[in-house]
Amino acid sequence: MTTRLPHSLRSDARDNRERILAVARTTFAERGLDVAMREIARRADVGPATLYRHFPTKEALVTEAFGEQMRACTSLVDEGLADPDPWRGFCLVVEKVCELHAQDRGFTAALVSAFPRAIDFAANREQAWGKFAELARRAKAAGGLRPDFVPDDLIMVLMANSGIRTTSPTAAVAASRRFAALLIQGMRTQPAIPPLPPPVRLPLTVVT
Amino acid sequence: MTTRLPHSLRSDARDNRERILAVARTTFAERGLDVAMREIARRADVGPATLYRHFPTKEALVTEAFGEQMRACTSLVDEGLADPDPWRGFCLVVEKVCELHAQDRGFTAALVSAFPRAIDFAANREQAWGKFAELARRAKAAGGLRPDFVPDDLIMVLMANSGIRTTSPTAAVAASRRFAALLIQGMRTQPAIPPLPPPVRLPLTVVT
Repeated sequence: MTTRLPHSLRSDARDNRERILAVARTTFAERGLDVAMREIARRADVGPATLYRHFPTKEALVTEAFGEQMRACTSLVDEGLADPDPWRGFCLVVEKVCELHAQDRGFTAALVSAFPRAIDFAANREQAWGKFAELARRAKAAGGLRPDFVPDDLIMVLMANSGIRTTSPTAAVAASRRFAALLIQGMRTQPAIPPLPPPVRLPLTVVT
Repeated sequence: MTTRLPHSLRSDARDNRERILAVARTTFAERGLDVAMREIARRADVGPATLYRHFPTKEALVTEAFGEQMRACTSLVDEGLADPDPWRGFCLVVEKVCELHAQDRGFTAALVSAFPRAIDFAANREQAWGKFAELARRAKAAGGLRPDFVPDDLIMVLMANSGIRTTSPTAAVAASRRFAALLIQGMRTQPAIPPLPPPVRLPLTVVT
């Protein structure tokens, strides 16, 4: 029995950790990042001490909960950059990133949040962001993307995408496809392009 | 004194009513319609009994708080319909309605809510909706609006518009202008229009 206890404890701890992460993803998706840690603990059926042992801050919990989506985003941008036609690559990124976010609204909230201490998450985001800006530059040079597009417009599109409310995850993905397609048409170079109103600096939420 | 009391009471009641409505607008804008009536009463510094005397249900409060915006919406659609160029009228409505909603996110939540008992509010909405559908029909017939646009797309656009988060009301309006302009470009008939993915039925929230 004494040799078994540590093993069983480790296994319990792993179960707790996974359950906390699953609950956090669902709760953040439903209600944004403003949910109290106490509420996450309650829903995951663990004590606050257990929650804080695994995730000392909400920032740690958020970045761990959405690490996988962050990596998926980066891969999408890499895929777009690898397309020999930069405009086609750009469209792929806008479509697929909207789709990814439609499946998980909590992720949109996480992506547009500032994480002063979550070095890895912020670094991954910066990297994906730099690559997307490069893809946009190439898509403009190739003549597909309108010249007054700015990379921040993607943040605006993702915030907007997360505002679309539907009755099911399937409908959310379908709506995000239609939404992305409309926007992509608006982003295309057109025979006579009226200039867009100026871009607006969009804020990151500070998660403390 | 006895002749004054009723007057003063009426005046207090009117002040309370106005204060409740102002607080409700601000609170709904900040936090959506899910705020408890008790919370509205607390913020307006009145007792629950006073709140319920003025507004027996949350539905009554919501529809009264946003009655003015609803009338503004209807006027906008009338203005669009009056334009001899239906496509220009259509663009005006999309731009101005996005702007109106950017100034008041609570109104977007109210507009996409079902109000089973708020006959006037729902009737006004239906009327504005029918007129917008007519404007879209004319804008298609005139060749400006792409043929696969559906009036429900405006609901999608308004939900999306309300997801854009900015640092100030001025920035919210500026962002909504850029957003509306991108979408309008996407809604235009273009030399070669790739068909949009199919529209998605978007739900009304039931406010009880």
